[in-house]
Amino acid sequence: MKPYAPGEQPPPGKFIKLNTNENPYPPPPAVIHAITEAASGPLNRYPDPMSTSFRRAAAEALGLPGPEWVLAGNGSDEILTLLVRGFVGEGQSLRLPSPSYILYRTLADIQGASWEQVEFDEDWRLPAEFSQSRDDLRLVLLPNPNSPSGTVVPPAEIESIANSLACPLVVDEAYADFAEENCLDLVQRNEHILVTRTLSKSYALAGIRFGFLVAQPQIIAELTKIKDSYNCDAISIAAATAAMQSQAWLDENVAKVNQTRSRLASELAGLGFDVVPSQANFVWCTHPSGQHRAIYEFLKTNQILVRYMDFGDWGDGLRISVGTDEQIDACLLMIQRALTQLPGNTQR
Amino acid sequence: MKPYAPGEQPPPGKFIKLNTNENPYPPPPAVIHAITEAASGPLNRYPDPMSTSFRRAAAEALGLPGPEWVLAGNGSDEILTLLVRGFVGEGQSLRLPSPSYILYRTLADIQGASWEQVEFDEDWRLPAEFSQSRDDLRLVLLPNPNSPSGTVVPPAEIESIANSLACPLVVDEAYADFAEENCLDLVQRNEHILVTRTLSKSYALAGIRFGFLVAQPQIIAELTKIKDSYNCDAISIAAATAAMQSQAWLDENVAKVNQTRSRLASELAGLGFDVVPSQANFVWCTHPSGQHRAIYEFLKTNQILVRYMDFGDWGDGLRISVGTDEQIDACLLMIQRALTQLPGNTQR
Repeated sequence: MKPYAPGEQPPPGKFIKLNTNENPYPPPPAVIHAITEAASGPLNRYPDPMSTSFRRAAAEALGLPGPEWVLAGNGSDEILTLLVRGFVGEGQSLRLPSPSYILYRTLADIQGASWEQVEFDEDWRLPAEFSQSRDDLRLVLLPNPNSPSGTVVPPAEIESIANSLACPLVVDEAYADFAEENCLDLVQRNEHILVTRTLSKSYALAGIRFGFLVAQPQIIAELTKIKDSYNCDAISIAAATAAMQSQAWLDENVAKVNQTRSRLASELAGLGFDVVPSQANFVWCTHPSGQHRAIYEFLKTNQILVRYMDFGDWGDGLRISVGTDEQIDACLLMIQRALTQLPGNTQR
Repeated sequence: MKPYAPGEQPPPGKFIKLNTNENPYPPPPAVIHAITEAASGPLNRYPDPMSTSFRRAAAEALGLPGPEWVLAGNGSDEILTLLVRGFVGEGQSLRLPSPSYILYRTLADIQGASWEQVEFDEDWRLPAEFSQSRDDLRLVLLPNPNSPSGTVVPPAEIESIANSLACPLVVDEAYADFAEENCLDLVQRNEHILVTRTLSKSYALAGIRFGFLVAQPQIIAELTKIKDSYNCDAISIAAATAAMQSQAWLDENVAKVNQTRSRLASELAGLGFDVVPSQANFVWCTHPSGQHRAIYEFLKTNQILVRYMDFGDWGDGLRISVGTDEQIDACLLMIQRALTQLPGNTQR
């Protein structure tokens, strides 16, 4: 079995990290305060097994009917693991689009299940095949916005996919706060639509590991039975609760990130890249030279990490996370320099 | 499937909690300091996927050859889940003693695996049956000290059990810091002996969810492939590292808890209870009246929570966690009062 390989994590401070879609800004101040306060709380006691304060804050922030629509997890990774364990048995299968988040394949492998990939078409739309039912198909996973593309399948289309399938459809909305639309409303209409979220990206809290599922209460109740009893710790529950109560901070952060994203996209286009219009905190780009790995290596030598991704026959490219304006300026400068130095380049 | 039901978690402050084997004292001061410091660290960045600082501190504190003998987890629950997922496939089976920690059964159920219980004999020793190999047996789990009894199977006997089995033997040492012996040395001699530990009990850190596995490096490497990439968060890694560096605090805390344990055991005996000699931070006791549930209910009405456990045909009893001396005094007083008020009691 080939394990999932996350992006490189160099020693802090030495690199400009634009490779794992972290938020370049510090988290909401209320979060730091909540952690400091929780540190002097009763840490010798087990935490609340259901993360009640967080579920209440999340339900309120997202306009859900109540906390029973939310399940908290140790990162959305834990939520995804629970979903695969809960719905997909050994020998059964799950479906994912491609190119996309390959962790889902690893989760299937761990479970002794199989996976089936359906390729996006050239405009990052899903072919009809993605909606087809099949006997052993127990779960379909769709990152939306997708990674690496940053593209979005419109909610209306997602609803129609869910209606064609006989199994649950998980919409992985890790990046949805940076997008124009999301699928939260659909969850209330269709028990087969489940939405996962994370605090790692838009709330700038990758360090505390907190994600959650939004689904109908009967689904939440079933998954609760298979989660570890105390899956979230007292400090991250406090931090995550404070984060959900920081919606004004969120709006401001998202506006800043999206503005830098626009600039990054247009300057990359100016350097000759094909840039996919993104609704996430990263952009996917390819260069006519095809020298993606060389550009990645050049940047790395110059202390800038972006993500080089190779999807085999489908092709390769660079995924660049949106950093601060200064970080993006440095990255663009180095890309320009890399292009100048490429063998056979026409810009010398 | 019947989910595992952890002990009750009442709102903090209202009850004397002697039901989930938490440490009654606050954690090491260095831990609080580490959390506060980590709170102003780069929380927007992903944590170290391998919890390196913790593994180093744990290897040093426990005299292991190196950090590659340690795998960190989000509570020892996560470690146990990983072990079952890693070793036991659908349709295969695991073995556990009885009465013991029934979470293992739930983990088997979740995995679509089966479980087999082997009863301790009357002196809390394991019958030969526990060591017998079987084709579909893929994992044997043994809490040592055991819960609810607090008894210990001597390391020499554990080594001989491991040598008879064809599959790995997990020694769950959640309570080992309170015991006279442990199995860490055996791990270095036998790759089939795996030891799990938690910081929830002896380090007074149930609130931060941190546990770990000690096993030979090749086992750690395999299990690393199936864990969530970032299974421990930045703040609990910092807290757990500081805890492992607080060995003087640990010795002092264990001495205090064990002293109160002796007093609790002898005073319960004075009240007519049969008390099993314990090497953990709790005691298991039964009363000739058989009125365990009534005593539990009486205590609960009086804001004292102990654990009532009913093992079916085997019988029932009370598991009482070692609290502070004041908490134990209050508990003993209420037990005495409960006994006086029991229907048909002879002490009126």
